[in-house]
Amino acid sequence: MADFRWGVPHLGAFPVRDWLWATREAAGAMPTAEFDYGDPRGSAVLREVLAGYLRRVRSAAADPGHIVVCNGYAQGLGLALGVLAEGGVRTVAFEDPGSPATVGAAAAAAGLHAVPVPVDEHGIDVHALAATGARAVVVTPAHQWPTGVALAPERRLALIEWARRRDAVIIEDDYDAEFRYDREPVGALQGLAPDRVVSLGTVSKSLAPALRIGWMLCPPALAEPLAGRKYRSDRGTPTLDQLALACLIRSGRFDRHLRRMRATYAARRTALLAALAEHAPALPVTGLAAGFHAVAQLPAGADERHVIAAARARSVGLYGMSDCRASPAGAPPQLVLGFGDVGIRAITDGIAAVADLLTGRPRTSGP
Amino acid sequence: MADFRWGVPHLGAFPVRDWLWATREAAGAMPTAEFDYGDPRGSAVLREVLAGYLRRVRSAAADPGHIVVCNGYAQGLGLALGVLAEGGVRTVAFEDPGSPATVGAAAAAAGLHAVPVPVDEHGIDVHALAATGARAVVVTPAHQWPTGVALAPERRLALIEWARRRDAVIIEDDYDAEFRYDREPVGALQGLAPDRVVSLGTVSKSLAPALRIGWMLCPPALAEPLAGRKYRSDRGTPTLDQLALACLIRSGRFDRHLRRMRATYAARRTALLAALAEHAPALPVTGLAAGFHAVAQLPAGADERHVIAAARARSVGLYGMSDCRASPAGAPPQLVLGFGDVGIRAITDGIAAVADLLTGRPRTSGP
Repeated sequence: MADFRWGVPHLGAFPVRDWLWATREAAGAMPTAEFDYGDPRGSAVLREVLAGYLRRVRSAAADPGHIVVCNGYAQGLGLALGVLAEGGVRTVAFEDPGSPATVGAAAAAAGLHAVPVPVDEHGIDVHALAATGARAVVVTPAHQWPTGVALAPERRLALIEWARRRDAVIIEDDYDAEFRYDREPVGALQGLAPDRVVSLGTVSKSLAPALRIGWMLCPPALAEPLAGRKYRSDRGTPTLDQLALACLIRSGRFDRHLRRMRATYAARRTALLAALAEHAPALPVTGLAAGFHAVAQLPAGADERHVIAAARARSVGLYGMSDCRASPAGAPPQLVLGFGDVGIRAITDGIAAVADLLTGRPRTSGP
Repeated sequence: MADFRWGVPHLGAFPVRDWLWATREAAGAMPTAEFDYGDPRGSAVLREVLAGYLRRVRSAAADPGHIVVCNGYAQGLGLALGVLAEGGVRTVAFEDPGSPATVGAAAAAAGLHAVPVPVDEHGIDVHALAATGARAVVVTPAHQWPTGVALAPERRLALIEWARRRDAVIIEDDYDAEFRYDREPVGALQGLAPDRVVSLGTVSKSLAPALRIGWMLCPPALAEPLAGRKYRSDRGTPTLDQLALACLIRSGRFDRHLRRMRATYAARRTALLAALAEHAPALPVTGLAAGFHAVAQLPAGADERHVIAAARARSVGLYGMSDCRASPAGAPPQLVLGFGDVGIRAITDGIAAVADLLTGRPRTSGP
């Protein structure tokens, strides 16, 4: 009926015609030499276009020479942690709640120890971070995953100050920045400290995960090691795909797609809020300033796993916050409701079908 | 004038129109769900098509369930060595001459020790291999890189016997198999011992390096660890590219392109042999049964680096065998002449321009 899986954009809205148009344009203009192995940092054309785009949209300090194109966020994270481990870093901190599985696996692959740091309503706790002894941290400043808070201005400064003092590197997952509902996007942290921040971006949310294209804005000192590691890893990201993305952005069709998607997600967000207001009016819902997921607080004493299993029996996919926590035991029961790839009708019907599970009140039968 | 760089196919012959056609066809038929993150092993459609193709053309024992699609040979090698290191392998052997830089870098990244094993006119010396104590080896059985010898039938059996006795894994770089001039392609080693061989293929030579698509035929016991490592590395290879390749192969256009390229490379090979016969008739040239490079033996006492530098001053790019040797000191001076991306006119003029450097005889001036 409805699957509130998070992390997936509206897949049916992928602009197939625009992408094919961009691929055709890019292939037509592609010099023969570009069919060879390319610059491991990625196509110069795409890096130029990305730098302009990220300066404009993310207030990033983006220099095409210090961009490394990669195959999405996961590869970028792996490359960054690998280079940091080579440089002597032993411990990487990550936000809790956050992505313990993804960061944990990438850290283990790089031979790093991963430690959680709590997130409060202003973002990551920088004092707690300093106490870990880590020399690297993975953060989501624009829209904290999954709580949805924006890193408060004073925290941004404290985080950068920590990095300078500690000779540490901040890995910024520049996540959901394209889709904000409350105001202008929060700028990338990277713009404030380009020498301390590796900023990772991807088209997985803005276009589709299947494209596997991302990028890293690298501190100048790390650009060469990161390009070298990308080279050893797979020699570079497919060139025609890169040139197609450059063409899509430059033509304005990427922005047009984002505008359409903002309207789509805003409508779905409204539908979700309306359904929750109708069927579970007392349920606290947070994290809706950007992106396409919300956090719903279940009644005290509710059991996430029980709610999820019961919903599944009614063909509604719900997902618990526990998967985002380093230590789920004893944490308050919460759901992370993704609505990126759920239609309005499915949102409305889905929430109605599980209202009693969300509120903890038994179903009333009939009108 | 001419650049005899090896490892590069005829880039200008990349079938742009066929590729765009295949991309359009694939996108049109692509179910919405395919725009999501995919199976880390790769698209089921491509794995099915590849299995059929590799059974037919390479006599491989290809099972779609045990194929992992990757981003070219280098990524496949890195994934394979990483999984073997996790499984307790400490040393990987490689052919000498061969690719010491590529294997060495991939081995170092995986934390493995890399040891060279000599190649003679029948291929890798399996006795010497056994003496290394390695539990993994990287080989090019169909067309040894760079000597061009095919691994002799008795050596194939000895190599597999070694792997079984030693509980070792053979990493087969199924290299240049598409382009043979003397007879039907030599089958993949993998077909003889699918439980012992990881066979790596790529379209970098048959289509273009810029596509970054390859595949691994995995022993059943390694298929899951390799897919897991691919997932951690980058979540999977771009889906639309995979589906386009599947479409290209299934439509027969890939075979048609290979037929055209065989004719192109055969003509370039003939031009190279004719130019060498005219300008350096005594020069021993070997390794021409397949692919698009040859090995030329320089006169005893010639200095590879001197010949290369002198040729460069005449705008002719020559490349020495030393870069392919684990220990170049004292080895006979040889050139590896790539002709994949060199036109017939450039081949003819290029060889004429460096004839005296190849033969060691001073240039005669005028007719």
